[in-house]
Amino acid sequence: MPETQQAVVLKSKGHISIEDRPIPKIEDPHFVKLEIKKTGICGSDVHYYVAGAIGDFVVKKPMVLGHESSGVVVEVGGAVSSVKVGDRVAIEPGIPSRYSDETKEGRYNLCPDMAFAATPPFDGTLVKYYLAPEDFVVKLPDHVSLEEGALVEPLSVGVHANKLAKVAYNQKVAVFGAGPVGLLTGAVARAFGAGEVIFIDVFEHKLKLSSKFGGTKFVNSSQFKDEEFLVAEIVKELDAHQPEVVFDCSGAEICIRTGIKVCKTGGTYVQVGSGKPDVNFPIAAIGPKELRVLGCFRYAFGDYRDAVQLISKGDVNVKPLVTHRYKFKDAVEAYEFNAKSGSDVIKTIIDGPE
Amino acid sequence: MPETQQAVVLKSKGHISIEDRPIPKIEDPHFVKLEIKKTGICGSDVHYYVAGAIGDFVVKKPMVLGHESSGVVVEVGGAVSSVKVGDRVAIEPGIPSRYSDETKEGRYNLCPDMAFAATPPFDGTLVKYYLAPEDFVVKLPDHVSLEEGALVEPLSVGVHANKLAKVAYNQKVAVFGAGPVGLLTGAVARAFGAGEVIFIDVFEHKLKLSSKFGGTKFVNSSQFKDEEFLVAEIVKELDAHQPEVVFDCSGAEICIRTGIKVCKTGGTYVQVGSGKPDVNFPIAAIGPKELRVLGCFRYAFGDYRDAVQLISKGDVNVKPLVTHRYKFKDAVEAYEFNAKSGSDVIKTIIDGPE
Amino acid sequence: MPETQQAVVLKSKGHISIEDRPIPKIEDPHFVKLEIKKTGICGSDVHYYVAGAIGDFVVKKPMVLGHESSGVVVEVGGAVSSVKVGDRVAIEPGIPSRYSDETKEGRYNLCPDMAFAATPPFDGTLVKYYLAPEDFVVKLPDHVSLEEGALVEPLSVGVHANKLAKVAYNQKVAVFGAGPVGLLTGAVARAFGAGEVIFIDVFEHKLKLSSKFGGTKFVNSSQFKDEEFLVAEIVKELDAHQPEVVFDCSGAEICIRTGIKVCKTGGTYVQVGSGKPDVNFPIAAIGPKELRVLGCFRYAFGDYRDAVQLISKGDVNVKPLVTHRYKFKDAVEAYEFNAKSGSDVIKTIIDGPE
Amino acid sequence: MPETQQAVVLKSKGHISIEDRPIPKIEDPHFVKLEIKKTGICGSDVHYYVAGAIGDFVVKKPMVLGHESSGVVVEVGGAVSSVKVGDRVAIEPGIPSRYSDETKEGRYNLCPDMAFAATPPFDGTLVKYYLAPEDFVVKLPDHVSLEEGALVEPLSVGVHANKLAKVAYNQKVAVFGAGPVGLLTGAVARAFGAGEVIFIDVFEHKLKLSSKFGGTKFVNSSQFKDEEFLVAEIVKELDAHQPEVVFDCSGAEICIRTGIKVCKTGGTYVQVGSGKPDVNFPIAAIGPKELRVLGCFRYAFGDYRDAVQLISKGDVNVKPLVTHRYKFKDAVEAYEFNAKSGSDVIKTIIDGPE
Repeated sequence: MPETQQAVVLKSKGHISIEDRPIPKIEDPHFVKLEIKKTGICGSDVHYYVAGAIGDFVVKKPMVLGHESSGVVVEVGGAVSSVKVGDRVAIEPGIPSRYSDETKEGRYNLCPDMAFAATPPFDGTLVKYYLAPEDFVVKLPDHVSLEEGALVEPLSVGVHANKLAKVAYNQKVAVFGAGPVGLLTGAVARAFGAGEVIFIDVFEHKLKLSSKFGGTKFVNSSQFKDEEFLVAEIVKELDAHQPEVVFDCSGAEICIRTGIKVCKTGGTYVQVGSGKPDVNFPIAAIGPKELRVLGCFRYAFGDYRDAVQLISKGDVNVKPLVTHRYKFKDAVEAYEFNAKSGSDVIKTIIDGPE
Repeated sequence: MPETQQAVVLKSKGHISIEDRPIPKIEDPHFVKLEIKKTGICGSDVHYYVAGAIGDFVVKKPMVLGHESSGVVVEVGGAVSSVKVGDRVAIEPGIPSRYSDETKEGRYNLCPDMAFAATPPFDGTLVKYYLAPEDFVVKLPDHVSLEEGALVEPLSVGVHANKLAKVAYNQKVAVFGAGPVGLLTGAVARAFGAGEVIFIDVFEHKLKLSSKFGGTKFVNSSQFKDEEFLVAEIVKELDAHQPEVVFDCSGAEICIRTGIKVCKTGGTYVQVGSGKPDVNFPIAAIGPKELRVLGCFRYAFGDYRDAVQLISKGDVNVKPLVTHRYKFKDAVEAYEFNAKSGSDVIKTIIDGPE
Repeated sequence: MPETQQAVVLKSKGHISIEDRPIPKIEDPHFVKLEIKKTGICGSDVHYYVAGAIGDFVVKKPMVLGHESSGVVVEVGGAVSSVKVGDRVAIEPGIPSRYSDETKEGRYNLCPDMAFAATPPFDGTLVKYYLAPEDFVVKLPDHVSLEEGALVEPLSVGVHANKLAKVAYNQKVAVFGAGPVGLLTGAVARAFGAGEVIFIDVFEHKLKLSSKFGGTKFVNSSQFKDEEFLVAEIVKELDAHQPEVVFDCSGAEICIRTGIKVCKTGGTYVQVGSGKPDVNFPIAAIGPKELRVLGCFRYAFGDYRDAVQLISKGDVNVKPLVTHRYKFKDAVEAYEFNAKSGSDVIKTIIDGPE
Repeated sequence: MPETQQAVVLKSKGHISIEDRPIPKIEDPHFVKLEIKKTGICGSDVHYYVAGAIGDFVVKKPMVLGHESSGVVVEVGGAVSSVKVGDRVAIEPGIPSRYSDETKEGRYNLCPDMAFAATPPFDGTLVKYYLAPEDFVVKLPDHVSLEEGALVEPLSVGVHANKLAKVAYNQKVAVFGAGPVGLLTGAVARAFGAGEVIFIDVFEHKLKLSSKFGGTKFVNSSQFKDEEFLVAEIVKELDAHQPEVVFDCSGAEICIRTGIKVCKTGGTYVQVGSGKPDVNFPIAAIGPKELRVLGCFRYAFGDYRDAVQLISKGDVNVKPLVTHRYKFKDAVEAYEFNAKSGSDVIKTIIDGPE
């Protein structure tokens, strides 16, 4: 009979509880065993909790939640050489096949055989002991906290989006949606050399927060019913310039439309956020400007490592993201709170288990 | 009093006539004077004729039509060194500013100060004598006819689309819409190394024609009401593969939706055609596949030259495009015919003036 | 006691013999067991035989020779899904670590933990049974022979060089050295769209052969003692054009110098061949032309697959490369012959073992 | 009789004097007339003075010196719209043809018809009034001094080199040669996101100065006779890492050899400096690492503008470069001093003329 540990389990839509699960054992010599220390709650976790599905991913059987985690290495497989017991690490939650084309091209986020934590049918990280391959954990320097380590996950999304966009020195960047991913995407843009980062959101307190995440200009879009007025306002704020790069981190139709229209001729628009599967899209606006409109999915080779560096070197400060903290034993309450709360919560961190 | 020449003039929506216009004189020493020999009728010309406008471009005063022309150099400015009197040339119809950023980056198609023939307010090429800068005419080899020279214009659109897409050896390419631009885009894809080019159209005779333009597979989409079935059919035709590159040369919503959905993970979709300004767009399909969705506009540095080479080397045979021919004196009739005719016309060529 | 098989073993510098070696067993479930059918003799094999070393790679203990092989799958590991028993395949001879950065970036040729067949200390393919991971064998279509399958290896070098150079439609390409790799590199350039491929070599019969490998122009450099005259001759042959892409497949100083000097402003020079470690290099010639001078090493993700396609579709005909054939039992003689022979041998194929 | 102005003229090798030259008049409506305010002395000026030639560029007739200048707009041509009288500007000294391919591709530095100030046979900027096209002057913000404006020229060289190298966030960069261009190249690397910039030079005071130009690590190479020891020292300083990007700003053979050898697998080496036309080059080192070795020449589209932004935003502080200042009337003395002085001079600025 295997030893067991507690796990935060989404039983079915609307039902979370803490249950016993077996403690996993290292079988692949390239794997390490981690003691989970800090885990962020992601909007996707909450969405599975509330809706039972995200797009084609449907929760059909109980699934351990959590994928934004940091931990400590407690055991290493026989072939592991890059980390050792005691190392504090950020943990990549998605493990691709080593044999897919996409993985071998550095785009493992597109691997069709990806096993991603807390995405059905794969269990997540909200347990005591978790296994990962040695090259999917990134060592945290001593001066980087485990809480910051948990925030490497959403930061990597921002790193990935900025690399896709090829953000370059002195460019003007617009970010629609100042939630965790939007804030971090803007912060990375600045660290990568952007000259201006303008945030667009409907909540004043989020826009205020964005000044800690690279924001240099801010537009509260709640006052603009029409995308043309919003386009004009953004251009006015940027001293009559259009942004070369636009990140939509909202998924909202009005933001998508405005983002496409405000983007400079020859510029790049990246769809980071997700919302409705179909939107009324201004397709005629992309031709004469020869826009690059890029899909963006999670993070790929090198992004996690760069995210740790951004924190380590002080180029991005992720700490102001954390608005709420819960103990592992209170994880159910944490999810319930996140499901009920609105825009006040930026990021909730679960501590433990002990 | 200046000497005059006849010109095919769109007076206003629905009214074309042949009128007298002054013969232009070379003022800029880098310009050449051309005698126009062959001119293709483009869908945009017909659209101006029928609707009086394309998007923001509105015909507000009489405008000479025509922009797909070849001719013979009859006079050269004092600084001209690359062509000489008697040279037979294909004529680029859009002259950008030499001072814009876009021109200096090789993307003069995006120049905000572009003067494009037969796009309001600029006169077109359906006259006897026309001026162009020496570097916007491309010499035709002896074995390339002036009619082929007129077809360099739409072929350049295909060249440009393929360069944007970076079509590479052995890729699978889907082309939606087998009109002139679709056919030529597919033909260029094959010449650039594509392994398969699948054409999708509702007209059987166009699909048949596409086999002369690089087509290796064909799907008649008229039988598919639903994009999911059409996606499945295309994949089936491609032996269970999805195309790495999709060109939509139709502008139709169903094609746009199908094109995005059928495009392979990590692939590229290019919007070549234009239709409604807004479409119901499957935005959620571009994220997890990290598609590149590219706007595409006319042609830019090098494209005209490559188009002439494609014809000259026999890598694309443009001749089967031409379905109808008219004399310059019958140009009004030619436009009326094109406006009335449906899918039977592929390309009409106007010969002359004499 | 394991079953044994015969192997062609380089005992030490100058000594080859056929010896008994154990038949390997599949341990990794992603591996397949192959019966070797055809193997090309590479210049590197011969160099190890004659000199006992190539650069830092020194033969310190007996090593099985051979790395250009095709074979038939005779057994598959439990996790194999992409090939099956009976499949005829081309075999990639270099197996990288799945955990290195380079492998995960698609550049596994640069993996520091590469195990490459017949490169000390790793045994080669000149045995009856050989193991490889399923994703490092590429299935041969029925109409592609096993001898062609053995030639996929050098063809992949040409594919890789052309991809690095980004050879594009209608470019002019110069290839120095018309040995097997030079011939195949030129052939791939043409298949990838090059408009002209000029071969430069000192042997007339090789230049003659190069017309079967994409060559459109030829310069016998034996008559030119000075690089400046050779540059002038190449430009003359190309109708007063400089090549946009230069491949040096010789490693000879005179070719390197000429290649750099003849390459067009803004062009790309790829160092495919190897010779002396240090050469007198015209460094001042790369600045004002802003040349890209690229190192090139073996082949990486996708190259083997593309090479099989080039053969399968008839875009490259590798057959005229084979000038000599030996039975496996006569392999020692084959190496001795290759070591003694000069430029007459292009490619020797070893058949078997039976 | 035209009005005249004083000019600093290189009469022939070793002879400079101040002479009268005609004041130029605007003829092209896109040109502006500038009053020159500050001019840096470049090593190339001094080299023409001392040697009468640089490579193929030979001083055959008297030539006005100077090409690193800032000034004030005193008159504008009729078509000028981007600057106005009174604007303080940095002046690009090289005016390409508007008709060359290279210019239209954004690589006007490679234009064969370039007219570059103080490069034979073109006169330089050391006069009172100088003409330039409006798009080859860049407006200086109020808080940027005219002396900084003169330093935009060498800074643009650094910008260009970094763009060629595609320096990215957190990369390790090595700069050989801590003269003006080396210092500025390193400073730009840091501003573009480099995590470490290691300078290598033989002069301790230059290495000390480099800490103001992005330098994070320093190696005095005077103590290393052998490139292998120098490679080892650089790697040691970078905590056992090799630099992903190497800029050689020295042109010295030992630096070129060390730079190639120390560069990381898959990395980029840029030849910024120039020295002997031929060097003993470790060609065998670029293959197995697949290095990109890039020629680099002056600056191209966008570089001057980016350089002004780097200064304006405080991302590069060019001021510590200036070690000596002379009045225009003492320009001959300034050149004589520069020709005699050794490594003590970093940058000399000529003020005026008044």
